[in-house]
Amino acid sequence: MNTSSKKVISVGLLGCGTVGASFFKLTEDSKIQILKTAGAELKIVKVAVKDKNKPRSVYISPELICDDPMEVVNDDSIDVVVECIGGINPALELISAALDNGKSVVSANKELLARYWNHLHDKAAAGKVQLFCEAAVGGAIPVVRALEVSLAGEQISRVTGILNGTTNYILTKMSEEGLAYEDALREAQEMGFAEADPTADVGGHDAASKLAILSSVAFHSEVRADDVFCEGIENVTAADMDFAKRSGYTVKLLAVAQTLGQGAEDSSLGDSGQKIAVRVYPAMVPLTHPLASVRLSFNACFLEGAASGELMLYGRGAGGFPTASAILGDVMTAVSYSSPGTASNSLKRADIYPVGGLENKYCISLYVSDESGVLAKVAEVFAKNKVSIRSMEQMGMFSEARLVFITHMAKEDDMQRTLAELASLACVEKVGSFLRVYGDE
Amino acid sequence: MNTSSKKVISVGLLGCGTVGASFFKLTEDSKIQILKTAGAELKIVKVAVKDKNKPRSVYISPELICDDPMEVVNDDSIDVVVECIGGINPALELISAALDNGKSVVSANKELLARYWNHLHDKAAAGKVQLFCEAAVGGAIPVVRALEVSLAGEQISRVTGILNGTTNYILTKMSEEGLAYEDALREAQEMGFAEADPTADVGGHDAASKLAILSSVAFHSEVRADDVFCEGIENVTAADMDFAKRSGYTVKLLAVAQTLGQGAEDSSLGDSGQKIAVRVYPAMVPLTHPLASVRLSFNACFLEGAASGELMLYGRGAGGFPTASAILGDVMTAVSYSSPGTASNSLKRADIYPVGGLENKYCISLYVSDESGVLAKVAEVFAKNKVSIRSMEQMGMFSEARLVFITHMAKEDDMQRTLAELASLACVEKVGSFLRVYGDE
Repeated sequence: MNTSSKKVISVGLLGCGTVGASFFKLTEDSKIQILKTAGAELKIVKVAVKDKNKPRSVYISPELICDDPMEVVNDDSIDVVVECIGGINPALELISAALDNGKSVVSANKELLARYWNHLHDKAAAGKVQLFCEAAVGGAIPVVRALEVSLAGEQISRVTGILNGTTNYILTKMSEEGLAYEDALREAQEMGFAEADPTADVGGHDAASKLAILSSVAFHSEVRADDVFCEGIENVTAADMDFAKRSGYTVKLLAVAQTLGQGAEDSSLGDSGQKIAVRVYPAMVPLTHPLASVRLSFNACFLEGAASGELMLYGRGAGGFPTASAILGDVMTAVSYSSPGTASNSLKRADIYPVGGLENKYCISLYVSDESGVLAKVAEVFAKNKVSIRSMEQMGMFSEARLVFITHMAKEDDMQRTLAELASLACVEKVGSFLRVYGDE
Repeated sequence: MNTSSKKVISVGLLGCGTVGASFFKLTEDSKIQILKTAGAELKIVKVAVKDKNKPRSVYISPELICDDPMEVVNDDSIDVVVECIGGINPALELISAALDNGKSVVSANKELLARYWNHLHDKAAAGKVQLFCEAAVGGAIPVVRALEVSLAGEQISRVTGILNGTTNYILTKMSEEGLAYEDALREAQEMGFAEADPTADVGGHDAASKLAILSSVAFHSEVRADDVFCEGIENVTAADMDFAKRSGYTVKLLAVAQTLGQGAEDSSLGDSGQKIAVRVYPAMVPLTHPLASVRLSFNACFLEGAASGELMLYGRGAGGFPTASAILGDVMTAVSYSSPGTASNSLKRADIYPVGGLENKYCISLYVSDESGVLAKVAEVFAKNKVSIRSMEQMGMFSEARLVFITHMAKEDDMQRTLAELASLACVEKVGSFLRVYGDE
């Protein structure tokens, strides 16, 4: 597309829920601004919806509305297709058809891109068009473009994200107001920040999809949602929060991706070089770290690059208008630049490094029987498995007594073996919580 | 430039100090990555330096080095010129010549761009080439590109930056270690974070130049460094820091730009619509605000957009490699995209809104004589000038006694009149400090 020869850009919109309707309204409201900055008029010429008669929050002229999405992707007059349907089907089929028809596509669909990255980018490359997905990760936060363009020459070593607003809202309420997990979840549901079935959010799966996309872009290798090791926040307790705070930490659901390779930490990497480790889990984050300041439903991505150093991008990770803002940025990019950037190259499949080989510090709480010699028995299990204890504190009394340990750096496999053995000790009534501690020693 | 027809991009480098040398090394080290993401080889073919014989931190083949910068800007084989000289002359002349010669230019020169934005962008537009300046603001932080591309359709209402690493380092040391200003400055100088003559940094002038550039990009109007109202951190005391902390704040040197207009806050705006208010000053920032978490020499930009909501970009604001990383991102953009984006349009001159008309909350400390009736006299001055007091606290005792006030929202002009009258009261020995309080009521 060249703005000097073409003054009207025709956009077809798939889906008109919260995000689609917000994008429609934002485009209407921004006409002057868009003309000024892109030198082109952006015109939404067709909107495909499920039910033509459903009342909507924005007025859309009836002649724009259709209920057959194939009409949009097959319309020769349309330059850019914006997909706001979500889910795998029929989004996969529709985007594929649009790309095959030589249309650039802007999608906010994290599930789809975290599963079909190469499939879709191959189609984009074949059609010499572009596929954009800024809105699929971190809402309005321009992290995908930062990685693809500003940091295109940069060696990114690690990406650490708070990528799910629902869980961050719950954890913030637990931390700041001392709420129990269940009460904070209920409040999030009442506020509209959490679904009636919150599994995808609280289980970490939503963050895992987003991390897969970010990793693909940051490391130039296709990472899929299934590659991501995933633990949710369901077992984080008010007591964990309290202990974290007093120790100078807060608890966040982190999505972490990093490269290991080329003569680095582990000899199991083989010849091919770079491996990528990807995981989502609740972790203790030092209060002095910028990620600790990400409160409520906000999201953030913390990037570590060889030359750039530490970068963090922070903003609204969800919601109609923030997401629409990212979509509009992608549409404007599709309009303003003619050559397909890195956005439209398919990637080699990532070589995934198993989480068991990673090193972390850990925080473990154990409910133990109130008898002498318990600590010695417990400490022996740690020592046997090569996990070294940095600090221990007894919390609570009598039947509520628990021991909270923070370890030095230890291998995840060793830690997991330690946990299993601790659970089987007669003097350990149960393993309370288990959190990674963020930060290098 | 089109990467499909041209496989080698020739870069000419002006200046080889810390930033220039870092860019040279980074480009060498990133060859494979660049080929992978841009599909082109980036080759630095000429490096202009002041003194050919000066020892350098990187090895540069002698045949690349010249001591006449005009050789670089007039070399027909060069596609992109990277300017790392700094200052107005001869950078202005050299960049002008490069643009006239049809070369895209990447510059890290904040002083120049904060004074000659339109002059240079007119030349770029005339030559159908591009002028990039990501590295001029916030080092590695991709804020210029975020504003120009990702947020191109967005209505930005306010930009709040911590844009100077030296002052942020000093203020962090004062806040976290209780250092006096002079001691923190000395430490910053010893660490290499502050110059022997620190005026440009501590006086806020460096931040003002960067704010001018950010405002030009965010509001699509040319703002110059001279437009920016500027107060430095020289008068911030350890006592201010202490009071701020106990009140739930920290003190930061903020660079703030906002739009006012179109039927908004003030009738003095006239017909033309948007005015822009730009200022740099030390301010109290709530500890819960993400800007409060920006420590040491880090920089950040907090953006407020109509659709995107609140965004913050955080990272290393200076240093050889972070700055080189931003330059490389710009060079890759120049290489990857063919049409000049908004980067290369000249802008209408901004209509500057006088700071005196803005509203803020303020924190004022007054050293007063130890006698009865002082508070009544002081309060009367506030009231007379329509500045309403939110809280008052007496700090210290006897000859060290001072009153610290926080006001409600009040007009800057009214506050300045209040300050002048307070200073002239017999019972006021001196006005201690005067800080704006960040945050809307």
